[in-house]
Parts: sequence; C-alpha cells; structure tokens
Amino acid sequence: MTEPTKDFEALDARMRETWDAILGQSPLIHTLKGGCDDRRLYALYLIETFQYTRHNAQNQALVGVRLTPGHTTYLQFCLRHAAEEAGHEQMALHDLKAIGVDPAPVTALAPMPSTEVLIAYLYWISIQGNPVQRLGYSYWAENSYHYIGPVLKAIQTQMKLEPKQMTFFVEHATIDTRHAEQVKQMIARGARSEQDWQDIGRVLEISLRLTGNILTDVQREYERLQAGAPSPYAFLQVLAGSR
Amino acid sequence: MTEPTKDFEALDARMRETWDAILGQSPLIHTLKGGCDDRRLYALYLIETFQYTRHNAQNQALVGVRLTPGHTTYLQFCLRHAAEEAGHEQMALHDLKAIGVDPAPVTALAPMPSTEVLIAYLYWISIQGNPVQRLGYSYWAENSYHYIGPVLKAIQTQMKLEPKQMTFFVEHATIDTRHAEQVKQMIARGARSEQDWQDIGRVLEISLRLTGNILTDVQREYERLQAGAPSPYAFLQVLAGSR
Amino acid sequence: MTEPTKDFEALDARMRETWDAILGQSPLIHTLKGGCDDRRLYALYLIETFQYTRHNAQNQALVGVRLTPGHTTYLQFCLRHAAEEAGHEQMALHDLKAIGVDPAPVTALAPMPSTEVLIAYLYWISIQGNPVQRLGYSYWAENSYHYIGPVLKAIQTQMKLEPKQMTFFVEHATIDTRHAEQVKQMIARGARSEQDWQDIGRVLEISLRLTGNILTDVQREYERLQAGAPSPYAFLQVLAGSR
Amino acid sequence: MTEPTKDFEALDARMRETWDAILGQSPLIHTLKGGCDDRRLYALYLIETFQYTRHNAQNQALVGVRLTPGHTTYLQFCLRHAAEEAGHEQMALHDLKAIGVDPAPVTALAPMPSTEVLIAYLYWISIQGNPVQRLGYSYWAENSYHYIGPVLKAIQTQMKLEPKQMTFFVEHATIDTRHAEQVKQMIARGARSEQDWQDIGRVLEISLRLTGNILTDVQREYERLQAGAPSPYAFLQVLAGSR
Repeated sequence: MTEPTKDFEALDARMRETWDAILGQSPLIHTLKGGCDDRRLYALYLIETFQYTRHNAQNQALVGVRLTPGHTTYLQFCLRHAAEEAGHEQMALHDLKAIGVDPAPVTALAPMPSTEVLIAYLYWISIQGNPVQRLGYSYWAENSYHYIGPVLKAIQTQMKLEPKQMTFFVEHATIDTRHAEQVKQMIARGARSEQDWQDIGRVLEISLRLTGNILTDVQREYERLQAGAPSPYAFLQVLAGSR
Repeated sequence: MTEPTKDFEALDARMRETWDAILGQSPLIHTLKGGCDDRRLYALYLIETFQYTRHNAQNQALVGVRLTPGHTTYLQFCLRHAAEEAGHEQMALHDLKAIGVDPAPVTALAPMPSTEVLIAYLYWISIQGNPVQRLGYSYWAENSYHYIGPVLKAIQTQMKLEPKQMTFFVEHATIDTRHAEQVKQMIARGARSEQDWQDIGRVLEISLRLTGNILTDVQREYERLQAGAPSPYAFLQVLAGSR
Repeated sequence: MTEPTKDFEALDARMRETWDAILGQSPLIHTLKGGCDDRRLYALYLIETFQYTRHNAQNQALVGVRLTPGHTTYLQFCLRHAAEEAGHEQMALHDLKAIGVDPAPVTALAPMPSTEVLIAYLYWISIQGNPVQRLGYSYWAENSYHYIGPVLKAIQTQMKLEPKQMTFFVEHATIDTRHAEQVKQMIARGARSEQDWQDIGRVLEISLRLTGNILTDVQREYERLQAGAPSPYAFLQVLAGSR
Repeated sequence: MTEPTKDFEALDARMRETWDAILGQSPLIHTLKGGCDDRRLYALYLIETFQYTRHNAQNQALVGVRLTPGHTTYLQFCLRHAAEEAGHEQMALHDLKAIGVDPAPVTALAPMPSTEVLIAYLYWISIQGNPVQRLGYSYWAENSYHYIGPVLKAIQTQMKLEPKQMTFFVEHATIDTRHAEQVKQMIARGARSEQDWQDIGRVLEISLRLTGNILTDVQREYERLQAGAPSPYAFLQVLAGSR
C-alpha cells in the first residue's frame, strides 16, 4: 500500500509543470495576452473541443469493457462517467450557434492533426495497457479550470461573450468539482502499486501535452483565417469583426 | 414510419412462440414438473446465470462504443443500462453462498458450452450489425418473468428456498418492470425501418433459443451429478439431499 | 511437457465422436442417404458455406492481432493462414454460378441462425481466451474430408455434379493435406500445457457441433423450398428438377 | 477516376516537404552533423525502432480485419504485408546485441512518449476511418531510405558500425524496393476518389511528423545519458566511448 498523499502531490506537481509549459510556450496564449478580441479564435477552439469531446464517452466506456471480472467498482465508475459524458459535445455546438456559427459544416469537419492525435491516444490508453491509466487523463481534465480558468476569463472579457455563449466551459467548471472528487477517490482506490501511479502520471502528462498541442494548431488556423488563406474553416469568417 | 403497435405485437408473438418451444421441449422443465426438489439443479442453473450475466454490462456498453456520432439518446441508454447491470452477477454468487455453495470454485469454472455460445453471440450482435438489434435481447430478458416465473415458483416451493436464497431472480423481477418499459420506449424510438424491426426480432429469437439451450446443458450436468460421474461441478454434491 | 502423441489421439477421438454424432443424427444426412438428387439442397449448403467462409480470414487474423510480443512463429502462422484463406468464399459463389444460381441475391442474404451462431463463436474464440484455442477449429476443418468426403461423393453422384461445380470442396480437399500438417505442427509447438490441449479440444468440439447445426437449418430451409413456402431462398427454385 | 500520376506527385511533394522539415529542424540531425560518434545515440534510436516495429504487423492486419466483404485484393495485401512484417523487430534487437547491448532490459522498457503516440496513431488509423488511409504510412515508410539514407550513412561512418550491426536498416533498404512498388500499385488500385487521396496524404504527413518527433525524444534521452542523469536507458552507458 503506497501513501496516497505523496502520490497525489507528485501527480499535482507533474500536472502543474505540464500546464506551466503549455501556458508559457503556446503562441495562442500569447495572442490572447496581447488582447485578441477575435471570436474566430474562440470558435476554432470550440470546434476542436467538440471534436475530441464527442469521443470521450466511448473511450471511457472501453476501459470498462476490457476489465477482467472482479473489478466491479471501477467498472461502474467507467460506465457511469461514460454515461454522464455522452452528448457533452452538443454543448460546444450550442455555443458555436450562440455566437452565430452554422453547426452543419462543423459536424462535417475532420479534426485538426493535433486533435486527431489526442483522440488516437485516448483510445490507445483505453483499449490496452494498465486499465487504471486513463484516470490520469480524467485527473487533469476534471481539475483543469484552475489552469484554464484565467484563459477563459480573458476570452470572455476580450470577446465580450455572455455565459450562454460559453455553456460548455461554464457547465464543466460546475460539474468538475464533484467529478474531480470522484476521480480522486477512484485513483486512491484503484492505484495499488507504484507502477499504477507511474502509469497514471505518464498518461496525465502525455494527454495534457497532446491537448496543449491543439492550441498550436488552432493558432495556425487562426492566422490562416486572418490572412484570408484558403481554409476548411472559412465559414467562420462571418465572425470577423463581430463582438 | 412503421406502426409500432403492430410491430410490438409481432415481437410479442415471436417471443411467446420461442418460449413455448423452450418450455415445452426442455428436459429440465420436465424434471421440474416431475417434482424435483434437488438444489443441485438450482445451483447449476445459478452458476450458468452467473457466467453470462458477468458479461452483460460489457457487451451492452460495446453497443454504445461503436455508435456513430449523433445517436446521443441511444448512447446514453446503452451506457446507463450497462452501468446498472455491472456487478449483477454478484447476486447469483450470493444466492449460491446462501444455499451453502463455496463461491471460490464457481468463479474459476468455464461456462458450459451452450452458455459460452450465448456469450459469444451476445458479443457478436453487440460489436457488429445493426446497432439496435441488441434491444431484441433486452426485450425478452426484461419481460422474461411472465414465462420463467412459474418455473422459479416451482423451484422455490419444491426446493424450499427462502427469498434471500433467490435474490437474483427476485431483484430482477422487481427492476424489470421499469427496465422493460425503458427498453420498449427505446425500441419505439430507435426502430425506424422494417429492417430494424426484423433485426430486433431475429436477435430476440436467436438469443432466447440459445438461452434455452443452457437448460439442456444444465440438465445433462445434473444427471452426471446424480450418477456420481466425474464432474467439474462435483463440489455441488454437498447439496445432495439438502432442502 | 506433455506427450503430444497421446494428446493428438485424444483430439482425434473427440473429433471422431463429434462427427459420428453429427453424421448419425442430422436429418440432412438422412435425406441424402435416401437418394436425394435435388440441387437446391446443395445450393443451400453452398450458400451457408459462403456465409461463414467469408469471415475466416478475418477471425484467423484477429488471433494474431492480440498476441503479446514474443510469439512470432504463431503470429506468422495466423497471418499467413489468414492471407491464404482470404477470398476463398469466392469459390463457393463460383460453384453456385456454375450450377445456374444468380450470385447477386446470395451476397445480400443474412446467414441462417445456426451459421450466424458459428460465425459469432469463431470471432469469440479468436478475440479472447487462450490464443491457441482456435487451432482446435483449424484441426477439424483441415481434416474434415475424411468425414465429409462420402457425403460430398453422394452429393456429386446423386446430383450429377461436375468437378467445376464443386471447386470449393475439391480445392479444399487438395490444399487440406498441406494445411492439416501445418496445423498439426503448430499445435505440437504451441500447446505447452494441459490447459492448452483442453482448450483446443473444447473449441474443436463446440465449433464442430455448431457447424453440424448448420445442416439442420439447411434441411429445414430445403423442406420449405420443397413445400413452396415463402423463403428468402426462393430464387433457388430455378434449380428444382435440374440435374 | 482520378489521374494517378498527378496524385502521386502530390503525395511525393507532401512527403518531401515533411521530411525536409524533420531533417532541417531535428536537434538529433544537428548532433549527427556535428560529427557525433557516440553509439548510445544509435542504440536509443534502435530501441525506439524496436518499440514501434513490434506493432506494425498487428496494426497492418487490423486494416484487413475490418474490411467489408468484397475487398479481396486489399484484404490479401494487408494480411500478406502483415505476415511479412511479423518479427521484424527482432532485427533491431539483433543489432543492439551486435553492438554489445543486453536485450533483456530493452524488451521490458516502455516506449518513449513520442513513440507511444506514433503507435497509438497507427492503431487509430488502422481500426477506423477510411481503410485505405494506412497506405499513406506505408508509402513514406517504404520510400524512406532516400531521405534517411544519408543519416544512416553518417551514423555508420562516424560510429564505425559494420553491416551486421545495422541489419534492420540494411534489410529494410533491400526489401523496400519491392515493397514500395507493391504499395504504389495498391494505392493506384485502392484510391478511387479525391477523398481517398486526401486521406492517404493526411496519414502520410501526420505519421511521418510523429515519427520525426521520436528523434527529439531520442536526442533528449541521449543528453540525459551524456549528463549522467538518472535514466531508464542507463544500461546503455556500457557503450560510452565504444566504437
């Protein structure tokens, strides 16, 4: 039996360092800090959030599907969380509509490369390896508002967004407190060896880095929209100048 | 749009005919009608119930995992039902313990051939084909107490079983009313074409027949126990004469 | 290390007993022994052969896909055999065409229930459980002409079929000698424990019984065609009286 | 029907640009150009090559497993290529042994993060999406010696490696000519729509970029070894100074 407090502190430190690297280096964060008030940037970010969120219920459920008999508590955790996450991507679509984006082209888009790589990785860690490892993803995801909150606040203020245009993020901030506690309890119960903690930490870091990479793709596509270059996101040009 | 009432009547007729064939031909039913009061028979049946029930949450979840985007209602149905079914096999184990059976050898047993074939079929219909087809299995399973109730009643009376020794079946009779209604609503909503109804009916009949085959295997193993033949179920001989 | 000779003798005995049960009890075999010269019976059997054969390359490959690192010989066996089996179902289609059956409706048909159950079981034993167990299926399949040869001979003679109308069975009899040897060598190499031999024997018996069940479905559908009852196989009525 | 020549030119251009970006920006390439003669760098690269190569037969086979009926040519291509790739990772292990590395700790190592992300992506593109898309990975992989040849030459010369210490790369350069032609023919036959070509190109670029990322991880771990920092690769320190 390991000493969970120390292990959680190690997870928290790893999460903090990874977030610091993302928030410190991402050009998109730099753009926002420079006062960007362009809703196309928010829309691109929402679209990619939509892209990977629509897979989360399914890859979460897959963890439960491959559990061997006798892990009833973790099986129930996986299936209940999966059930709760089902359909959450609709909130991202709703927010896009609320700022005037046509959802039809959104659902037909392929994810950006970095988003697809994150999706691929989340399935990978769900279908093989240590079954508890995906909790590392849930751990940072359910605790992300401490880090991403200021970014969202800047987006809200600079782009003059109302709460009903940010339901995905507002909703998740609300339910996160409860979820974060459930995830922490599940880790405390499910992580029984040093290897378990290492695998959880490894997935935490890699999945968070891959999520950070999405910001880079979003920034690049934003610059293409600004430059008027050909883009699968050209339908977002209706937002240029809106706020 | 089809007329659901007629379609449900057709499902009900197919279910009734299949049950009639099972209850009319199964040697195990004949044994029970002959007044059998031997708890080894009940124990064998509970063991096989344990065997396939432990897979139900997982194959139910798989239906949700492979749904394409945009089927949120059915996805939630699949994941919620899967979450509810997780761990139900523990009730069968509990009932075995309650009549004095050591659960340790039970969890190490392979399923009987007919039980393994049912399990294989339930995964098969869950991972490919028409995603709504597994509702045909749920439909008869959640409505089975109308048919199997008298059999269970005979078991209870003849073998002098108390309710706490039959929690699996008592519990399922209770929750079935609500589940049966949910399954019916999901079918009414999810079955949109003639092919959907056919596929649901097909799975209803095949999965019910395969379940009926389990009774034949149980009867055969019971006869081996009676004859004192070598058997992986020899640990049930402690029940001989008990009631 | 077990003594393979004894183990193979046990497999052979189990194979012989199962074949004897099938050939002794199947009503279709009875029909043939009664001198049936109706090509509709052969066509129905070819159609079901087509149905499960089209899955064999894929479920054989799946065994290789889930092997853990370090089983290179068995991995290569699985993938090479899968590659060799790919497309074999086309021979069954060819034979149907050669006796005058339109292949278009054939490829659109669902398998009969017993055929679907066999398919389901072959995937099941391929995706989970002891990875060597599927060799039990290959073992009887590659050695089946000893048992099914007389049946095919009767079909050929009574229905006046030319070799070019039986390429599937002629071809498989030819390649079987080599395959049978390869399968035997792979079993001798891959079966390292008593459990391995048991699992191989178990799959041998169950998969052979399930294949035997197909004969019963074929006979039932044949009787429906004879009676002129509504049937998804009504397009075979062009064969009535042909020979 | 598209004009394959133009489409292949587009693939070739995308491949060239992606390679140029990798070879121009990778710090590992910079290290090599600076004359590095340290076999620890080569060993680290071989280890990661071992890590993802051991999955290639299996994810290649998965493409065939999920093909719908009627794609016999592509099914055979997938299964034959998978069979040929089975066990190739052993060559990388052999080369490690040939320079004096103990293979035991190698097979127990987890892949570096970037390598695991590549593996995850290769499974992802194999199990879903456009079935022809994985040909984009094969296309650059079988044509890579044009780009990576000079790098390997520098490694060989600077680190004074004999051919028997580079069998993985020598062997692959030899068989690549034939494989490259087979992949090109399969693309010419399998890519039937503009979308097919786009998907192949997309996978080509993303999988090549992810492979390029491995160089960065290798360089980082190399620097840790140089600095004597704690490392799961510390067993490679036996190579320090060897050549």
